Amino acid sequence: MANAKQQVQALLFDVFGTVVDWRGSVIREMTAFGEGRGFKHDWAKFADEWRGLYQPGMEEVRSGRRGWTILDVLHRESLLVLLDRYGMTGLSEHEIKHLVTIWHRLDPWPDAVGGLTRLKTRYIIGTLSNGNIGLMTRMAKRARLPWDVVLGAEPARAYKPTPEAYLRNAEMLNLEPHELMLVAAHNSDLAAAARVGLRTAFVLRPDERPGQTIDLAASQDWDVVTTSFHGVADAMGVPLLRGIGRV
Amino acid sequence: MANAKQQVQALLFDVFGTVVDWRGSVIREMTAFGEGRGFKHDWAKFADEWRGLYQPGMEEVRSGRRGWTILDVLHRESLLVLLDRYGMTGLSEHEIKHLVTIWHRLDPWPDAVGGLTRLKTRYIIGTLSNGNIGLMTRMAKRARLPWDVVLGAEPARAYKPTPEAYLRNAEMLNLEPHELMLVAAHNSDLAAAARVGLRTAFVLRPDERPGQTIDLAASQDWDVVTTSFHGVADAMGVPLLRGIGRV
Repeated sequence: MANAKQQVQALLFDVFGTVVDWRGSVIREMTAFGEGRGFKHDWAKFADEWRGLYQPGMEEVRSGRRGWTILDVLHRESLLVLLDRYGMTGLSEHEIKHLVTIWHRLDPWPDAVGGLTRLKTRYIIGTLSNGNIGLMTRMAKRARLPWDVVLGAEPARAYKPTPEAYLRNAEMLNLEPHELMLVAAHNSDLAAAARVGLRTAFVLRPDERPGQTIDLAASQDWDVVTTSFHGVADAMGVPLLRGIGRV
Repeated sequence: MANAKQQVQALLFDVFGTVVDWRGSVIREMTAFGEGRGFKHDWAKFADEWRGLYQPGMEEVRSGRRGWTILDVLHRESLLVLLDRYGMTGLSEHEIKHLVTIWHRLDPWPDAVGGLTRLKTRYIIGTLSNGNIGLMTRMAKRARLPWDVVLGAEPARAYKPTPEAYLRNAEMLNLEPHELMLVAAHNSDLAAAARVGLRTAFVLRPDERPGQTIDLAASQDWDVVTTSFHGVADAMGVPLLRGIGRV
């Protein structure tokens, strides 16, 4: 950790689950949409199924079977599968766009904005998400996430957890892998980052999925293990800011 | 303009000369470096010659004779040419890096931060510079430029004024070309952007180069023609902010 504090110049963040509560936000939006449109479904199940189509969609791209495709497009394709599955027919193009961009309107965890604001005083902070740039940019504006830079899979043209997704992001910041720290709530993401030399911070997000059985503890000896972004800031030696509570 | 105000969702900015005073900043840094190291030269001439090597360096990449190469690398190569030309020998690797990263430490024009802060309340704001992401990110942190997103030549893998440099940036923001406005102090940049359908704002920067003979007026009927970023905000219908003067 002493080394990490001295060497790290930038912290890049996994976003879905780590910075924002994707599940609660999708449920919130789908509930409101369903009420307006007269659709009644188990929206928690809908949210989980939508997220469940996330990895298979990206795997087509990672495997090379499909050319580079941004997450908004994959989200739209998986939404259409779900609408069919749930018998939600007759939606307009405008409504479909509204639903696809639910992922642009996810709410942050309560400590996210305050913790990021602290970290930004000492480090470059940015996204290292599989979400595309347009998605991340609009999410950040709505949620007031104070990123210095929006990076991730799209500018790297590689989805996590392929090595290129991490290494190309380090390169785009003119950094060696050990000068870059990934902050994530998912051990598998951190493991892939550590394998190519990045520093790692695990933030426990036990409310990402109710009843979740993984990611309830650090699976390895990550550089930082904590329960909030303030914990990351503490570990990285960033003082508290006047007027910004710890939540 | 009525149309532009309604349709534009994001404003991307040329940076060298439009947002920051590259010439004054290079002179300031080279003067300080020269004093410390005992080099006496005409640093204004040095700055102009360094910038003069900018287009030929990028042209190698644009023409396809050379693979994608970020501006920091081109800046380093042109610096080495200049150090030789000026007989500045014996510099350490640390000193060379310090000089190359002068371009990371450029000062903004007086209206830049205030005007951007206003525009950010209504629009996505970001960079569309030939400078690479690491350069732009560090410049923004030092100068407190409140970008929502750092885009430009590097994520597009195309230097301006090629059409791809503009179109890929629109695409990365999920925008049609007419939903994106380029703000620049250089008519040639705006002309290239307009040719592929972007909206355009010309900001007069008569102090970019003393005695400059070009870019002292709009060469075409751009959507916005003004003399500061506050003028862009006025034209785009963004109210003044309490506590942020017009400079």
